[in-house]
Amino acid sequence: MKNNELTDQPRNLSRRGLLLGGAAGLGAAAAIGIDRAVSTSPSSTQPATHGEQTEPFYGTHQAGIATAPQAHATFYGFDLLDDVDREGLRRMMRLLTDDGARLTQGRAALADSEPELAEVPARLTITFGFGPEFVRRADPSAVPPWLKPLPEFTIDRLQPSWSDGDFLIQVAADDPLTVSHASRMLLKDVRTFASLRWTQKGFRRAHGSEKVGLTMRNLFGQLDGTVNPAPGTEEFDRVVWSQDGWLTGGTGLVIRRIDMDLEGWDEIDRPGREQSVGRTMGTGAPLTGGAELDEPDFEAVNEFGFPIIADYAHVRRARSDNPDEVIFRRAYNYEGEQDTATASNAGQVFAAFQADVDKQFVPIQQRLDELDMLNLWTTPVGSSVFAIPPGCSEGGYIGETLLD
Amino acid sequence: MKNNELTDQPRNLSRRGLLLGGAAGLGAAAAIGIDRAVSTSPSSTQPATHGEQTEPFYGTHQAGIATAPQAHATFYGFDLLDDVDREGLRRMMRLLTDDGARLTQGRAALADSEPELAEVPARLTITFGFGPEFVRRADPSAVPPWLKPLPEFTIDRLQPSWSDGDFLIQVAADDPLTVSHASRMLLKDVRTFASLRWTQKGFRRAHGSEKVGLTMRNLFGQLDGTVNPAPGTEEFDRVVWSQDGWLTGGTGLVIRRIDMDLEGWDEIDRPGREQSVGRTMGTGAPLTGGAELDEPDFEAVNEFGFPIIADYAHVRRARSDNPDEVIFRRAYNYEGEQDTATASNAGQVFAAFQADVDKQFVPIQQRLDELDMLNLWTTPVGSSVFAIPPGCSEGGYIGETLLD
Repeated sequence: MKNNELTDQPRNLSRRGLLLGGAAGLGAAAAIGIDRAVSTSPSSTQPATHGEQTEPFYGTHQAGIATAPQAHATFYGFDLLDDVDREGLRRMMRLLTDDGARLTQGRAALADSEPELAEVPARLTITFGFGPEFVRRADPSAVPPWLKPLPEFTIDRLQPSWSDGDFLIQVAADDPLTVSHASRMLLKDVRTFASLRWTQKGFRRAHGSEKVGLTMRNLFGQLDGTVNPAPGTEEFDRVVWSQDGWLTGGTGLVIRRIDMDLEGWDEIDRPGREQSVGRTMGTGAPLTGGAELDEPDFEAVNEFGFPIIADYAHVRRARSDNPDEVIFRRAYNYEGEQDTATASNAGQVFAAFQADVDKQFVPIQQRLDELDMLNLWTTPVGSSVFAIPPGCSEGGYIGETLLD
Repeated sequence: MKNNELTDQPRNLSRRGLLLGGAAGLGAAAAIGIDRAVSTSPSSTQPATHGEQTEPFYGTHQAGIATAPQAHATFYGFDLLDDVDREGLRRMMRLLTDDGARLTQGRAALADSEPELAEVPARLTITFGFGPEFVRRADPSAVPPWLKPLPEFTIDRLQPSWSDGDFLIQVAADDPLTVSHASRMLLKDVRTFASLRWTQKGFRRAHGSEKVGLTMRNLFGQLDGTVNPAPGTEEFDRVVWSQDGWLTGGTGLVIRRIDMDLEGWDEIDRPGREQSVGRTMGTGAPLTGGAELDEPDFEAVNEFGFPIIADYAHVRRARSDNPDEVIFRRAYNYEGEQDTATASNAGQVFAAFQADVDKQFVPIQQRLDELDMLNLWTTPVGSSVFAIPPGCSEGGYIGETLLD
């Protein structure tokens, strides 16, 4: 083995040379710039581990939207540097597209300093989004009318440090080290074009820890996201994908950082919690009976004539008869590092995709803002809106429909 | 279904009553205090998901030490409140033992407000540790000589907010939501006895994303922990388990928060990195050849007579001929939320178990402090030492050998 290693691997020749210099050799090592031996995952049709599973990067739509939610996601919001123009945006997006295509397939980034960390794709998806300023710099006439900060809601306590942003990268995978490594490579690509404004790390249940297809429970213990268009359906396509100009095949993304008052929630017992949501905690079924996916009966009254699902219940307030008012949620839990044992720093990175934010998300949120018992324990502290451009083919790049 | 739900579940009767009160009913709900229906995982010998897997809570030793490292771990350091005496410590440890035994087996905590979140144990372990002040309050004569802050090292840049602490809880599982929920229940148990001093969240590769038994790669891309006693061996038992009085069957834990300068590391190319560690980046084999687990040949020289593994290489500096100077490492990566795209906030929660910190950990760290090329890119910013009491049997409690 010893001899093999010293003769088979070309980099050892260079290393030997470097050893002559002792500690001083490190400088020389940095200067020489030897080709890195990049190893790739063994290709197999039947992955032995879920870490080998990949999601396609190229396609009509970007990945990370209709993709079954991975266990971990980090959202990065950036401010563009002042001197970055349309040509700069194009260069940035070509660079990011190239590394995104590599990393998601388990291959090292172009200038990957830790190529071995790229070998576990674990369904990695990398999704790019454009804020209002990004689109303005590319083409001032191309800004969709809804691509702007949301209207103010009375429940909002927004912090600028969790809000807005010119550019978004969503990095999601079933392995936290994969998210970490991919993020690092992408942040290096971005740093000459933009500065990081905020980072939001989210988690869901681990890959394989629960049966597939269960609705996520949030930190309140609620089944969260029961009513959600299913990828692959006509409804999903209509709700999510834009048909509008350069954004055709893309979508709109609302990210809201929602602080959840876990201590306040603790003071409410189970029936109180179920009333405020309009669903049972155990199965997520509507309070009017049935199973999780059954329709609530908003007309049902109890023996005294009072509605079983109260006027203030979240499930009633979130619902609309207007078929335009539907969104696709792909939320993550977050939990910051706590400062004290008694005040949580936790909640939800609420992420909702829809073709038109003004028509779909805003009226729902306005109704919830007016009345929703859950507002007592939830406070939006961050809010951003991004246009998510369509996908691209091999050889193309994400954003080309706007930037070319 | 509808009728079943309304008649089978006793809590619906109460809920109905509450509905009469509308919004005001929530206050009443909180006051009534209805028994919570706690569902438990289906028992099965062949878990369908890895979320159903459990680690035993009771035993000679606490779990979370010899346990194969889970994907996620959070370490909580606490300061005891001033008025907590020996009797208070005993009450706290009985409470925590009870909830630890429940949660690790996939059962809800005693006062669990979200019992459904407890249903995915995912190999949850909960491990308790005592700082110097904890043991002093229990019995001033029982403090092991090594249970004190480590000696100062020249490389240290310790921040009090990441250091010391009177009490430790390590919560580890293969599912991040499991860690989150269990932590919340345990923090509630602790809050009348201690205040939270620091929280350190760590991650490794996801459960099942890589083949079992691989050495972890850290954020530098290095295989980290190659030389580590294997649980179940005579060496492990000798290195880890104390034979000393109340601590017999327990151990000592050093936690060091080590900032890793990923930007500086980026400037070093692959041969330079390999020289500073003394191992190849790809396979983790010693630079003198072979495979990861082969012994380095510290005597080997190149054709010009220079040592192949340099004097400053980490692998050489960490090694000792003294059989006492061995530790068991169980480290996690950490990554805080970055403020800018160019400065990482990442590194390692270095956790090392050994029976005697002064005899085992300190001399190794002193040697690394004197000379270790890796010191250029790593900075300890936090440091704590805890005595980890032995395990207990059902009916007993963790800490009973000190507190009874």
